[in-house]
Amino acid sequence: MTPIPVDSARFLADLHALRAIGGDSASKGVRRRAFSAEDLAARDWLAEKMAAAGLEPRFDPVGNLFGLTPGRSLLLGSHSDTQPEGGWLDGALGVVAALEIARASRAAGGPPISVVSFQDEEGRFGALTGSSVWAGKLSLAAADALVAADGMSFADARAVLAGRSGDFVDPARFSAFLEMHIEQGPVLDLAGEAIGVVTGIVGLRQVQITITGQQNHAGTTPMAHRRDAFTVAARIATALPERFANIVTPQSVWTIGHIALHPGAASVVPGRASFSLQWRDIDSDRLDRMEATIMALLDDIAADTGCEISAKRLRHDLSPMPMDLSLQAILAQAAQAVAPDRWRMMPSGALHDASNVAALMPVGMVFVPSIGGISHAFDEDTGEADLVTGLQVLADAAARIG
Amino acid sequence: MTPIPVDSARFLADLHALRAIGGDSASKGVRRRAFSAEDLAARDWLAEKMAAAGLEPRFDPVGNLFGLTPGRSLLLGSHSDTQPEGGWLDGALGVVAALEIARASRAAGGPPISVVSFQDEEGRFGALTGSSVWAGKLSLAAADALVAADGMSFADARAVLAGRSGDFVDPARFSAFLEMHIEQGPVLDLAGEAIGVVTGIVGLRQVQITITGQQNHAGTTPMAHRRDAFTVAARIATALPERFANIVTPQSVWTIGHIALHPGAASVVPGRASFSLQWRDIDSDRLDRMEATIMALLDDIAADTGCEISAKRLRHDLSPMPMDLSLQAILAQAAQAVAPDRWRMMPSGALHDASNVAALMPVGMVFVPSIGGISHAFDEDTGEADLVTGLQVLADAAARIG
Repeated sequence: MTPIPVDSARFLADLHALRAIGGDSASKGVRRRAFSAEDLAARDWLAEKMAAAGLEPRFDPVGNLFGLTPGRSLLLGSHSDTQPEGGWLDGALGVVAALEIARASRAAGGPPISVVSFQDEEGRFGALTGSSVWAGKLSLAAADALVAADGMSFADARAVLAGRSGDFVDPARFSAFLEMHIEQGPVLDLAGEAIGVVTGIVGLRQVQITITGQQNHAGTTPMAHRRDAFTVAARIATALPERFANIVTPQSVWTIGHIALHPGAASVVPGRASFSLQWRDIDSDRLDRMEATIMALLDDIAADTGCEISAKRLRHDLSPMPMDLSLQAILAQAAQAVAPDRWRMMPSGALHDASNVAALMPVGMVFVPSIGGISHAFDEDTGEADLVTGLQVLADAAARIG
Repeated sequence: MTPIPVDSARFLADLHALRAIGGDSASKGVRRRAFSAEDLAARDWLAEKMAAAGLEPRFDPVGNLFGLTPGRSLLLGSHSDTQPEGGWLDGALGVVAALEIARASRAAGGPPISVVSFQDEEGRFGALTGSSVWAGKLSLAAADALVAADGMSFADARAVLAGRSGDFVDPARFSAFLEMHIEQGPVLDLAGEAIGVVTGIVGLRQVQITITGQQNHAGTTPMAHRRDAFTVAARIATALPERFANIVTPQSVWTIGHIALHPGAASVVPGRASFSLQWRDIDSDRLDRMEATIMALLDDIAADTGCEISAKRLRHDLSPMPMDLSLQAILAQAAQAVAPDRWRMMPSGALHDASNVAALMPVGMVFVPSIGGISHAFDEDTGEADLVTGLQVLADAAARIG
């Protein structure tokens, strides 16, 4: 294996140059919502960098920007759009690292490497919209019908590409896809580790639970005669950890993120509570067991309280998506070579474009630490030494794939 | 003591006639929001009935309608305005019973009895607005500045009285005030009892509790590293009954009626939860002990979870308002005479105009059962036998007072 001679200083300079497009004046954060003027300016800047590196820039019909090397190649990348108030590395890190590695490899006569920045990963219109269409999981017609919160349709948004977009890129020209990303969680930062080799992207299930009790006057109804929907919701939330104790791992998570009480007045015993319960795990069987445990708990509490409790699946399940085992092994070798004993295998709790690309080719992912686990916020950050370590691990893995 | 020869059939006929003003076509419910056309029509109907009974109808400047008997008298009454979708008895029962007893007493040469229907008890503008102004607890200027949810000011609403309202009635002309009301709770109905002699109106305290944890990604943040504000709120709600166990009586109540999570999304660990906690009891000392218990619990849970928890008094306390002891004794004698062993002494968990009138004169209250404890709803109801028993107890007590 011949190393790819990446230039850390140039990589960091490019990262900061990209940050300046849509960059917040008072923080390190950025605003580059998909198809905003800032997002398009960033993509044009990337396309120039790709061309200067000898790659062919290609916008596809949904705004994914490829930097293509001739013939069959490895594909590296991530996304360059951001949350409305996003961090400077979420997506950008993987794109700029891909650019540096492809550029260095091409200049050094190394293995052929192409680059991609997917569009609308952060879900202004849908979720992972660009890679979903490319992977055939979402039709172009269905994508066009998506409408952002500001009323803009995806069809109208992508019309701005007229004249500069070409066809979709044939996935068959790529041998594999590697994505580097910030962890967006606290695990590496808390452990003082530099690299996470991703074993898979966790699956997600979600139910909307509705408790129907009895709405009553908060002054005249004795406690013994109440069927208070909020009290029942609180019991469910409090009982879950114990019920899950023998089922979950330290990487299993569950969240009640939203609740609404009816009528929602201080002087009225709530007659109805409706809340989301979402759980994620890397193991489908464990997702099943957690679901069965939730349903048994709801049955027990309904029987005990006399309240009616219903649970409705709100969205399609997301099945766990394992990363390619060979690529995991290569990334682990690269991590051990670059950052000996300062890396771990870990699942990704967040979704990534890699989930979609896995339908087209073997996929691997690598994480760098997020300081304090913060993401989707202006104060998201990663130490520059860790950014460079990530670059080196990704370059080392690309060289091993060859 | 000479009994007052009330006419049950006439009383029930009047109740049904009043119900027809603003009556819902599909239920027993009514819509007579304070100062609506239906409310004013009902007050005009009452004024005619008062005049026909030989009482002098008098609207005061805020729309309280008195039916005055000459000289010093006992005052009976309640309110005839309703919730936007209210029951047919909440308020109306006490007004129509007062009318029947005053009319029968006057015709029979019994004790002098005047009648009142207070205005805006149900709080279209404030809360107990009419009796608050009469009792001097709310200035007329402050009342005039109150604005209903529909944008109408109290000043504009009461302008409709121009030409038919007189001065405020001098409270010194009344020796005492008795109010009959539906219980608005399930206690009498569940016990199969006919009458509740009210010992006092419970006091009320309320805090707004805000829990500040850490907002996080619901996929990437391990459970062990979360400071989830909703989980903490649920712990508080679940711990309260045990913490209160040695302090409260079966008549103490507490309620979390509203909660808001921030940011309130299924995929985000809530960083902040804000909720109301209200508690009521007839005993000021017990209200204090409950408050101290709540604050100690909040401190314990804040220390245990690392979340910041604040509790802010949201409104002026309402102190418990005991009913006059002599009037309680007279009402108890009357209850035992009319419904032997089918009555109890009990606090009122709801507020009533009697709370305000207690600032002016001795006050007593009597309850009849609410079927299923339902009120503030179209399906509020009470059996007609119980309505007549209530009338007879109130008439008996009025005769004893003489």
